[in-house]
Amino acid sequence: MLNLKLGVGVRELDAQVMEDARARWDQLTKPLGSLGKLEEIGIRLAGIQGKVFPEVTKRAVVVMCGDHGVVAEGVSAYPSAVTGLMMANFSSGRAAVNVLARQMGADVHVVDVGSCCEQEIDGIVSAKVKAGTDNMAVGPAMSREEALAAIEVGITIAKRLQRDGVQVVALGEMGIGNTTPSSAIAAVLTGHPLLELIGRGTGIETSVLPHKGAVIQRALEVNQPNPADALDVLAKVGGLEIAGLVGVVLGAASAGIAVLVDGVIAGAAALVAHRLEEKVGAYLFASHLSQEPAHRVILDAIGLSPLLQLEMRLGEGTGAVLAMPLLESATRLVREMATFADIGL
Amino acid sequence: MLNLKLGVGVRELDAQVMEDARARWDQLTKPLGSLGKLEEIGIRLAGIQGKVFPEVTKRAVVVMCGDHGVVAEGVSAYPSAVTGLMMANFSSGRAAVNVLARQMGADVHVVDVGSCCEQEIDGIVSAKVKAGTDNMAVGPAMSREEALAAIEVGITIAKRLQRDGVQVVALGEMGIGNTTPSSAIAAVLTGHPLLELIGRGTGIETSVLPHKGAVIQRALEVNQPNPADALDVLAKVGGLEIAGLVGVVLGAASAGIAVLVDGVIAGAAALVAHRLEEKVGAYLFASHLSQEPAHRVILDAIGLSPLLQLEMRLGEGTGAVLAMPLLESATRLVREMATFADIGL
Repeated sequence: MLNLKLGVGVRELDAQVMEDARARWDQLTKPLGSLGKLEEIGIRLAGIQGKVFPEVTKRAVVVMCGDHGVVAEGVSAYPSAVTGLMMANFSSGRAAVNVLARQMGADVHVVDVGSCCEQEIDGIVSAKVKAGTDNMAVGPAMSREEALAAIEVGITIAKRLQRDGVQVVALGEMGIGNTTPSSAIAAVLTGHPLLELIGRGTGIETSVLPHKGAVIQRALEVNQPNPADALDVLAKVGGLEIAGLVGVVLGAASAGIAVLVDGVIAGAAALVAHRLEEKVGAYLFASHLSQEPAHRVILDAIGLSPLLQLEMRLGEGTGAVLAMPLLESATRLVREMATFADIGL
Repeated sequence: MLNLKLGVGVRELDAQVMEDARARWDQLTKPLGSLGKLEEIGIRLAGIQGKVFPEVTKRAVVVMCGDHGVVAEGVSAYPSAVTGLMMANFSSGRAAVNVLARQMGADVHVVDVGSCCEQEIDGIVSAKVKAGTDNMAVGPAMSREEALAAIEVGITIAKRLQRDGVQVVALGEMGIGNTTPSSAIAAVLTGHPLLELIGRGTGIETSVLPHKGAVIQRALEVNQPNPADALDVLAKVGGLEIAGLVGVVLGAASAGIAVLVDGVIAGAAALVAHRLEEKVGAYLFASHLSQEPAHRVILDAIGLSPLLQLEMRLGEGTGAVLAMPLLESATRLVREMATFADIGL
C-alpha cells in the first residue's frame, strides 16, 4: 500500500549469487568463517548488486536536517539555531562528517527538509516541508501528509544517488533535539521501557534526564501513536529529518544501494523504514554503536550488529562514514585473496 | 634491567602536548567528547609524536612467523606445514593481510623468526632463531636466551621501521598452533582461570577444546612459569613469533611509533611487553575484539578497549590493519574541523 503510494519496490537479494559468493569466501586462504562479519558483509553486498564481486567505490552520505518544536520543553543542551549554524558548517566543508567523507571518498549531500533556518545556504539542497516540527509534547509533531512529503524528499535524493551510480549511502542527520523523537520512536515501535531509552543526546546533564523522559511520556500520552502503524508513529512523535532518512532507506533499497546506518537518529529512521517495508533489512548495515541507550535496542529490533565500538554520539552520519572502509575491505578480500587451490592446499 | 639488556628505553608521552591537543579537540564544532574514542586516539597520538597535529600516513604491518612443537599434541586444525605455505602466500601478496595492507597503504614485512619451513621464500626476512619451538607440554618451548634472541629480531625490525619514518605499526603473526601458547601466557600473566581462555583457534571442533585445555594445563605444570617474570613465561610457554612481536612492541614504543594490537596472539605479545616495560601501554591501541575468549581478558589486563567488533579470528595482523583508517580519522578531524570560534558560536 505504502509502496504504491511512494513508488518504491524493494527486491529480495539474489539468493543464487549469495550462494556463489559464500562458496568463493569458503575457498579463500583462511580458516572457514575467520573473517567474521566481513564475510557476511561481502555476501550481502553480492546479493544486493547481483554479482559475486561487488563494489563500493562510489559512496555518498546524506545529511538530512530538521528542527524540533519539542526543544521548547528544554530537552536539548543547544538551541535550534545551532541546526542552521551547523548547516553552514557542512556547507563550508569543515564539520566532522565533511572531514570523514573526504577521507573515505564519499560525496556529501546536505538536505534541508525541515530546519528553522531562514537563510539559503550555498550547496545545501533546499527541500523544506516545514520549518521544524510542532511540539510533540502538546500535539502531533507533523501531519501524516507532512511526514509523507518528507519521506518523498528522501526518495528523490536516493533516486539522484542511483543516477550518480552510488553503491553505498550513509545516513546522516542534523537537528537539535532529535534524540528526543528518536527515543520516542524506539519506545513505541520496540515496546521497550521508555526510561531505559533516554540518553544525554549532545550533552544534557544527567539531572535533566528525568525531565526529558517525562516530556516524551507526555508526548506519547497526548498523541497515542499506533505501534502497528509506523507512519503514524513517525508523524506524531518523529521528525522531518528522520522522515527524510526513512525515504532515503526506502529509495536506496529499491535502487539496490547498500545503506550504512549511523547512530540513534538514523537508527530510528531505519527502524521506521523496516516496519514500513521489511525487505529493506537486507540492505541495511549497522556501522557503530552509539552511546545513546536506545541505539542498541533499535539495532536489535532490526537485527543488525554494529561493526565499530567508538563510544561516539555525534550524528551527522560520522559513524556510518567511518564504516565505509570495512565494506570496501569485504569487496577487496573476495576479489584479491588466493584460494586454497591457488596455493596447493 | 631488561631495557639495558635489550637497548631500548620507552619515553612517557608528552603531557603538555596532550593537554594542548585536548584543548583543541574541545574547541571543535561538536558536542564535548562526542567523538568518543577517536578523541582519545588523537590525544594519545599527539603525546606519542609530540605534536598537536600528529600523522599516521606512513604505515606498516609486521607479520612474525613461527612454528610450535605443541602441535604434536593435536591442538590445531592444521599441520605446521601450513605456516610455510602461508609465508609463500604472503610473499605473493595474496593473503588477507596483503589485501588489507594494500587498501590501507601499509607496507608488509614478513619475518621468519622461527618457522619449520626450510625453503628460502622471496621477500621474507629470514631471521630464524630456531625451527619451531619445542613441545611445551613436555618441557620449555624455548630457552630464555632463544626468547631474548627472538625479541631482538623484533627490536631490529622496529628500528628499520623507524628509519623508514613509519608512524604506526600493526602486529601480525602466522604460526599454526599459536593460540595455544597465547592462552597459556594469558592464563599465567592474568591469573584468569585457564578453562575460560581456551578457544577454537583456526577452527578445531568444540569437542577438542577440553583436550587443548588439558595440554596447556600440562605445559603449565611441567614448566612452572613464574607469573612475576614475563620473560620466563614467554620462554617456557610462548612462541618465537610471539617473542618477535614483543620485540616489535618494545622497539616501536622506544622509537615513538604507535602500535596497533591485533587478535589474541598479538595481544599475548603486547601483554608480555607491557609486563616487561609498563610504559609501552601508552603506545598500544587495540584494534578489534577477536572471537578467541582470551583476547578480551588480555586487553582488559593491559587496559585497552577494542575499536572494531567483527567476530574475526584470522590473525596475520588483519584486524590491526583494518583499524588504521580510524587512527587516520582522528588525525584528520583535529586538523580539518572548524572550531566553535570559526563558526561564530
